[in-house]
Amino acid sequence: MTGVTVNCDMGESFGIYSFGSDEACLPFVTHANIACGFHASDPIVMRKTVRLAKEHGVKIGSHPGLPDREGFGRREMRMTREEVSALVIYQTGALDAFARAEGVALSHIKPHGSLMGMAQREEHVAMGIADAAEMFGLPLIANANCVMSEVYARRGLAFSCEFYVDLDYDDDGRQIITMEHPPVAAEMVARKVRRAILEGLTTSIYGKEVSVVAESICVHSDTPGALAVAKTVHETLAAMQ
Amino acid sequence: MTGVTVNCDMGESFGIYSFGSDEACLPFVTHANIACGFHASDPIVMRKTVRLAKEHGVKIGSHPGLPDREGFGRREMRMTREEVSALVIYQTGALDAFARAEGVALSHIKPHGSLMGMAQREEHVAMGIADAAEMFGLPLIANANCVMSEVYARRGLAFSCEFYVDLDYDDDGRQIITMEHPPVAAEMVARKVRRAILEGLTTSIYGKEVSVVAESICVHSDTPGALAVAKTVHETLAAMQ
Amino acid sequence: MTGVTVNCDMGESFGIYSFGSDEACLPFVTHANIACGFHASDPIVMRKTVRLAKEHGVKIGSHPGLPDREGFGRREMRMTREEVSALVIYQTGALDAFARAEGVALSHIKPHGSLMGMAQREEHVAMGIADAAEMFGLPLIANANCVMSEVYARRGLAFSCEFYVDLDYDDDGRQIITMEHPPVAAEMVARKVRRAILEGLTTSIYGKEVSVVAESICVHSDTPGALAVAKTVHETLAAMQ
Amino acid sequence: MTGVTVNCDMGESFGIYSFGSDEACLPFVTHANIACGFHASDPIVMRKTVRLAKEHGVKIGSHPGLPDREGFGRREMRMTREEVSALVIYQTGALDAFARAEGVALSHIKPHGSLMGMAQREEHVAMGIADAAEMFGLPLIANANCVMSEVYARRGLAFSCEFYVDLDYDDDGRQIITMEHPPVAAEMVARKVRRAILEGLTTSIYGKEVSVVAESICVHSDTPGALAVAKTVHETLAAMQ
Repeated sequence: MTGVTVNCDMGESFGIYSFGSDEACLPFVTHANIACGFHASDPIVMRKTVRLAKEHGVKIGSHPGLPDREGFGRREMRMTREEVSALVIYQTGALDAFARAEGVALSHIKPHGSLMGMAQREEHVAMGIADAAEMFGLPLIANANCVMSEVYARRGLAFSCEFYVDLDYDDDGRQIITMEHPPVAAEMVARKVRRAILEGLTTSIYGKEVSVVAESICVHSDTPGALAVAKTVHETLAAMQ
Repeated sequence: MTGVTVNCDMGESFGIYSFGSDEACLPFVTHANIACGFHASDPIVMRKTVRLAKEHGVKIGSHPGLPDREGFGRREMRMTREEVSALVIYQTGALDAFARAEGVALSHIKPHGSLMGMAQREEHVAMGIADAAEMFGLPLIANANCVMSEVYARRGLAFSCEFYVDLDYDDDGRQIITMEHPPVAAEMVARKVRRAILEGLTTSIYGKEVSVVAESICVHSDTPGALAVAKTVHETLAAMQ
Repeated sequence: MTGVTVNCDMGESFGIYSFGSDEACLPFVTHANIACGFHASDPIVMRKTVRLAKEHGVKIGSHPGLPDREGFGRREMRMTREEVSALVIYQTGALDAFARAEGVALSHIKPHGSLMGMAQREEHVAMGIADAAEMFGLPLIANANCVMSEVYARRGLAFSCEFYVDLDYDDDGRQIITMEHPPVAAEMVARKVRRAILEGLTTSIYGKEVSVVAESICVHSDTPGALAVAKTVHETLAAMQ
Repeated sequence: MTGVTVNCDMGESFGIYSFGSDEACLPFVTHANIACGFHASDPIVMRKTVRLAKEHGVKIGSHPGLPDREGFGRREMRMTREEVSALVIYQTGALDAFARAEGVALSHIKPHGSLMGMAQREEHVAMGIADAAEMFGLPLIANANCVMSEVYARRGLAFSCEFYVDLDYDDDGRQIITMEHPPVAAEMVARKVRRAILEGLTTSIYGKEVSVVAESICVHSDTPGALAVAKTVHETLAAMQ
C-alpha cells in the first residue's frame, strides 16, 4: 500500500461564475483543498463545497490565497510575515466555521497559487503560514526541497509533500504557475505518478531530471481534462497497492 | 446591581485608515463587538483588536456586516436567508480564529449597521442570523420589540436587548441609522440611560415616548465624544448598583 | 424598415472566470452594453470586449452596475441620487477611455440588473442615472411605462425603450430579475418579438396582457441558448423590414 | 523664476474613512494627483476632490494605484504590461469623467505608491504606464535617473521629474516607500528643496550624496505636519523666484 493521497483544489467558483468540475472529481480524491473567499469563492460557495466534500467522505482542508480575486491569487504580492499569518488564520477560521456547521473537522491547510509559490522561496512567507498552521494544530501540504519544507521541518510541523501531475516543473524542481493551466494528456499521467512515487523523479520542461517527493498527488479541477486526470491518478494509485 | 452591560462596536479601522477610539473606550465597556472584515476591518486589525480587548478583560463578540466596505455596511442590500447565515458564519468563524489564537472564546454575536436594521423588519434576515448563532451556540445582542427579538425568542435563542445612547429613535422605537453619527451631549446620557433601565422608556426624535429594553447599553466608538459617552454610561451604571 | 435595434449585455467575464458567449452573439446585435468593472468585468476584459465589439461594427455603450461583484449587481442596494450618479459617471468614464483607445465613441448608457430595476420604481435612482447621462450627452436604453421613462422624458433626455425576449414579465409590465436566467425556447422568440413591436403587447407570467414598448430588443448573452435567441431576433427583425 | 511646481497626492479618503488634509494643503500646491478608486477613494470622494481642486485653481491629474485597498497600493504586485496599461487607462478614464463633469481637463498622470516604485525598476511596468499616457496624450510626473524616466524619454513622452521632501532616499537615489509616512521637520524642508533645485543633490538616509531632479516638489497630504511642509515648500519656491 502506497499511502499516497490525492489532493484537489476545490470550491473556486464565485457568485454567478462557476469554475472547475468539483463534483466529478470528488470520487477520485482523498483531500479537498477548499478556497476561502480571497482568491476565489464566497460564503455560499464555501458552504456548498464543504457539504459536497463531506458527502463524498473526502477530507477537508483550507486553501487560503492572496487577497486578489481579479488575479485569482496567481499574481505575487509583497506581504510581511504578520500579514501572511493573519491572512491564513482569517481564511482558515472562516472555512472551519462551515466545517463545524456540518459536523466535520478541518484536516489540513494548503496555501494557494502565488502564496504557495512565494513560500517556496521566501522564509518570512513560509514562517507566516507556519504560524497559522501551528495555531490551528493542523498539518500542511507542502512542496519538497525548498524554503517552505525546510521551515516546516525546522519548526517540527506535520506536513506531506505533494507532486503536481498537471503542472510543469523547471530545472530547480519548482512547478511553473501560470494564469491558466495547460491541458495534460491522461496517458502521461500514470507514468509520471508512478515515477514520482517509486523513483522520486520527474522530467523538467527543459528535459532535466529533478527530484520530487510524492506523498500526495495534486490535481487541479480546472485543468482541461481534470476528470480524466483525477481518474487516472486514482487508478494508478489503486494498482500500486 | 443592575447587571446591565455596556457593548461597543470596535476594530473598524481598515488598512491605513484608522477609525474610532477603541483603546480609550475599552476601560468603560464590558462587551466588544469586533468587526470582521466585510463592512470594515481586515485580518491585521482583527488580530490587534482581539488582543486589545483581551488585555482589558472585555468579552469579545463578532460584529458581522454587509459586504459593502464603501458604504460601511450602512446601505441596505437585498439578501436571502441562506446568504445572511453564510455571511454571519463566515465572519464569525474568521474572528473566532483570532480569538482562539489568543486563547479566548467568543462570547456573543451582534450584527452591524443595516444588517441589524434589516433584521428588525425582515423575518428571513433575522432567521439567517439566528441560524448562524445557533450553529455557534452563541447568544446575540438584539433590539427589543421587533421581528428580530420575536424570531430569537421563538427559536429559543439566548439574547440580550440593547439601548442606544448615541442614536436617535423614531416613533416606532427603531433607532435611526445614519452614515455618520451625530455628536451626543454627555450630560443627556446619564439621564437617558437611567430612564431606559428604570422605566423602559425613551423619547423619540419627534417627542413621543417609546418603549425600550435596556439590558445592554450600546456605545459607538466613532460617535464624536465617544469617550465621554462611554465614561458617563460606565459611571451611571456603577452608581445604580 | 422597423428601425428596431438589438442590444446585448456583454463583457461580463471577470479575471479567470468566463461568462456569456459574446463573440458568438455579436454578429446578431446592433448595440453592445459593456460591463464596467463593478458588477462584473475588469480592465483587461473591458479592453478586449471593446475591441471585439468594434471589430463587429457594433455600437458600444456602458453597462454600469451596483458595486457588488458577488451578487453580480442583482441584489438591490440602497443608494442616494448622489451615489448613483457618481457610480454611473465613474464606470462610464472608465469604459469611455477604452473606447477612445480604440478610436470609437460611446453610443449609449444602459444600467445593469438591480440598478435598472431600482430606477424603474425609485425616482432618486432614475434621477442619478439621468444626471450621469446628461453629463456625457449620451442617450439611454430604458424601460417604458415606469418611473425611469417618466424621469427621462421629463428631463428631455434621449432614450429608447427595450423589450426583453429572455425575461418574464409580471402583471405590472416589469421584467422579473433573477440571479440566473431561465432557458428560453427559440420558437417562442419570433412570436414574442413580432407581437411586442407590432402590437405593443406581451403576456405576463400570470397570463395577463401587458403593454410594452419595443424600440430595442434585449438579449442576454448568459441566457442558456443565447446564440439561438440572438439569431432568431436578428432574423425576425430582418424579415419585418 | 524657478518654474518648479508643487504636486500633492489627494482624494485618498474612502467611504466613511477620511485621510489627509487636502483642503488645508490645496492653497500651497500647483498640481493635485487625485486617487482613482483602486488603492484609495471612491466615486463620491473623487467628485468632491475634483471640485475642491478646481475651486483652488489647481491642476488635476490622475493618481492610479494598484488594486489593493487594504495595502493602500503600497504592496508590490506582479503585473504584466497589458495589466498595467489597462489599470491606468481604467482609473484615468474614471477620473477624467469627473473632471469633464466640472468642465476641466486632466493635466497629467502620476502613478501611486508601489506602481510608481515598480516602474522605476521594471521596464514592462514603465511601458504599461507609458502606453496609457500616450493614449490620453497626457504628460507624466516621474522620477529621474531610473528605468521609468529612461522609458518615457525614449518614447518621447512629456514628463517632469519630482523630488520628495517628505520621503527618505536610499544610496541609489530611490525614495523609500513605507506603509506610513514618518513626520518631517519643516525647518529641514526649505534647505532640502533649495539644494535639490539648485544643486540637484540630496543626502541619502545613509549619508551619501545622491543626484535628484527637482522639476516638481512632491508633498504627501498624510505626512504628519503636511500643512507646514506644503506651506514651507510654497514659500521657499516663492522666495527663489
